[in-house]
Amino acid sequence: MASSLSPPEVPMELHVMNREKLLKSLIQHLSISSRPLQGFVFLQGGEEQTRHCTDHIELFRQESYFAYLFGVREPGFYGALDIATGDSILFAPRLPDEYAVWLGEIKPLSYFKERYMVSTVYYTDEITKVLHQQYQGSGNPLLYLLHGLNTDSNNFSKPADFEGIDNSEAHVEVMRKTKVGMKEYQLESLFLHHTYMYGGCRHCSYTCICATGDNSAVLHYGHAAAPNDKTLQDGDMALLDMGAEYHFYGSDITCSFPANGKFTRDQSLIYNAVLRAHNAVISSMRHGVRWVDMHKLAEKTILESLKEGGLLCGDVDAMIHERLGAVLMPHGLGHFLGIDTHDPGGYLQGAERSKEPGLKALRTTRELLEGMVITVEPGCYFIDALLVPAMENSKTSKYFNLQEINKFRDFGGVRIESDVYVTSNGCVNMTKCPREIQDIEAVMAGASWPILKTTIPSANGEI
Amino acid sequence: MASSLSPPEVPMELHVMNREKLLKSLIQHLSISSRPLQGFVFLQGGEEQTRHCTDHIELFRQESYFAYLFGVREPGFYGALDIATGDSILFAPRLPDEYAVWLGEIKPLSYFKERYMVSTVYYTDEITKVLHQQYQGSGNPLLYLLHGLNTDSNNFSKPADFEGIDNSEAHVEVMRKTKVGMKEYQLESLFLHHTYMYGGCRHCSYTCICATGDNSAVLHYGHAAAPNDKTLQDGDMALLDMGAEYHFYGSDITCSFPANGKFTRDQSLIYNAVLRAHNAVISSMRHGVRWVDMHKLAEKTILESLKEGGLLCGDVDAMIHERLGAVLMPHGLGHFLGIDTHDPGGYLQGAERSKEPGLKALRTTRELLEGMVITVEPGCYFIDALLVPAMENSKTSKYFNLQEINKFRDFGGVRIESDVYVTSNGCVNMTKCPREIQDIEAVMAGASWPILKTTIPSANGEI
Repeated sequence: MASSLSPPEVPMELHVMNREKLLKSLIQHLSISSRPLQGFVFLQGGEEQTRHCTDHIELFRQESYFAYLFGVREPGFYGALDIATGDSILFAPRLPDEYAVWLGEIKPLSYFKERYMVSTVYYTDEITKVLHQQYQGSGNPLLYLLHGLNTDSNNFSKPADFEGIDNSEAHVEVMRKTKVGMKEYQLESLFLHHTYMYGGCRHCSYTCICATGDNSAVLHYGHAAAPNDKTLQDGDMALLDMGAEYHFYGSDITCSFPANGKFTRDQSLIYNAVLRAHNAVISSMRHGVRWVDMHKLAEKTILESLKEGGLLCGDVDAMIHERLGAVLMPHGLGHFLGIDTHDPGGYLQGAERSKEPGLKALRTTRELLEGMVITVEPGCYFIDALLVPAMENSKTSKYFNLQEINKFRDFGGVRIESDVYVTSNGCVNMTKCPREIQDIEAVMAGASWPILKTTIPSANGEI
Repeated sequence: MASSLSPPEVPMELHVMNREKLLKSLIQHLSISSRPLQGFVFLQGGEEQTRHCTDHIELFRQESYFAYLFGVREPGFYGALDIATGDSILFAPRLPDEYAVWLGEIKPLSYFKERYMVSTVYYTDEITKVLHQQYQGSGNPLLYLLHGLNTDSNNFSKPADFEGIDNSEAHVEVMRKTKVGMKEYQLESLFLHHTYMYGGCRHCSYTCICATGDNSAVLHYGHAAAPNDKTLQDGDMALLDMGAEYHFYGSDITCSFPANGKFTRDQSLIYNAVLRAHNAVISSMRHGVRWVDMHKLAEKTILESLKEGGLLCGDVDAMIHERLGAVLMPHGLGHFLGIDTHDPGGYLQGAERSKEPGLKALRTTRELLEGMVITVEPGCYFIDALLVPAMENSKTSKYFNLQEINKFRDFGGVRIESDVYVTSNGCVNMTKCPREIQDIEAVMAGASWPILKTTIPSANGEI
């Protein structure tokens, strides 16, 4: 059983590199402002949490900044980086004897030193002593704490790209097993099982959104008050936004497809509008491109497609000006992705959020830089709470072909989301799953993925 | 696909009954102390939590006391019971308009009134006004808050016993699919998938313990620092302590079996010692029995079996006096089970915990009462941290047959845990899974469960 599919070990050099990147960036920053190259970057790792007032312990997941720098999976740690020497120091909690009875072997400090590839390891009750001893400046050690780092740093985490991990695989598995009559949460269960059983992913990046029928227009469906509990109906679209986490790094992927495996004409229209936007953005992304422009490109592509399909009429640029794009896609085009699903760094100090519909929901407005990982997730939704006011508004009502658009009021929505790595002259789409309608229908009908396409021999007979 | 196995709806009358039980008990309590039968029992439901400082929202699970009284799955609620009238009042959060875009339909108050079967529903910003209007006494309304309830109340929650729910099924499924070479977490994944896919259980009662080989002697294995990541070896025992949660009510079940499907002589010896203890306790449980006596019965049964098996020698009562039972079973025999896995009420006001090994770990020392639900989970573990000091101690070393016991130093441990409902003259074991060695081996070899036993025809030819 699947044991040969053991997920790969993550090399701890990843976190050594992360520490080096941080120190390099910090030293540069300190040098510019002529501050002393002394002191410590000092971070507290996460603590285990109990639920409400009970002794129910939630499965611990390390705090993201601490995970980024040290890769430590255990709770109760602290960590320091010595700016003067580059030394990395971990502080482990001193565990009581009973730990060995209830929770397992009490590991020696040398275990953590070796596993996490740090310079030294002490106990947390030695923090003050150690930092004073190690400090090379005068007076009390200078500590750089997380608040400063968070605002000042300009680091982007390259996701761990490990051979053998392809999270889209689980989405394909779900797509293949989806049948009318199932419950939405059964799709969630299939996804969770595939990513844990075959991918070793114990955590998800976020709560699974398994929205079908009109639920697919609820952007953050799936939470405790709307818990993926509808039965799939013939004719429903399914919108599955689910991402597994591996060694702290997240993924964030959305597939949309018809529950019964065959797109109707209306479903094809909306789906292809979103797919065109998705592909147009990915074709245009590269170092130096403004994310706001990508958002507007997606809006424009969708509006044009809906105009071609007869749902909208009039001048598309004028629609964009009236923010009609935000009626159909109220969320931002995408967000940075890393150890947090919504990775920090979207707005640098001083940058302001737009107040315009759609644009105000953008989680970043920055220029793309090589090495950034960002989601591309255009969508098109028929949300009464937005659609009705826009259809009644004297400035925007003229763009709607009411007879056509009313047919879509119960449609729900479509979102297509891929995880994309920015390069100097383009980008790499790391999400590999069926996107073209014919490929989705083939996979849902039982075809293998990737689909083996017949190549037409060229004129000289070569393949 | 499994859609016909839809888990049953839980009748909300369950929570109406819970409220009635609480009010009845409280009114009795107030009457005895001649306090006015006025005022409100007032509770705050749970709030959604974000992880550390990020916007990652953990899947919300209602606070247990609030779940018990109201069965509300949504976050941000308050609830009140009017002592004078018996009215139940829910206060729902007033959701912002954007909720409809991101999180779904904003339900009217009438929806909650109907769904949760309460007298009235208001918004949380109306709490002060409503309680003042409804209050029949003079001055400010008298509020009974959770702290008082928790100490004073004497309620036990009868678990929801719904037709078609049999959580042990998932344990049988895992047992059947376990193979040498798998990872421990793959057993966890199989369990989680079965309970969610076919039982609709989105939450577990606690983090799964999937311990094999010497990990099975780590009582709370499976946490983030020991994350079920060992590979199953030929010859390992597996100890799987996993429980699903359904409509807030938990289960807590442990199965122990050999990874390769066949018990060795040594494994049979330890397993049967624990099984005898498990069965002896269940045969003796009924209203009025002291739980401490059940714990000692389990200890005695295990010690006797180990003496028969040649691991221990000497007088068993003397061993118990020296607390040798706690060397092999350092945890308590069981705990109350309900909406919390470790349900409250184990120690009533004034009751003190024992200081003796083993007994101090008991989560209750009370007499059993009809209607209580409690786990019965004897175990026998070879934990060096406890065994070595006991073998070296001059008072206890004489009981060990060193040559024999040393063979078991890497054995790990066995635990057998069932969820048991106490009745006036006995008890009902609600956990239905293979317990006898021959049944476990048959199921692991592919037999169906429950096993169909051939009945030998009686003398007169009848079956």
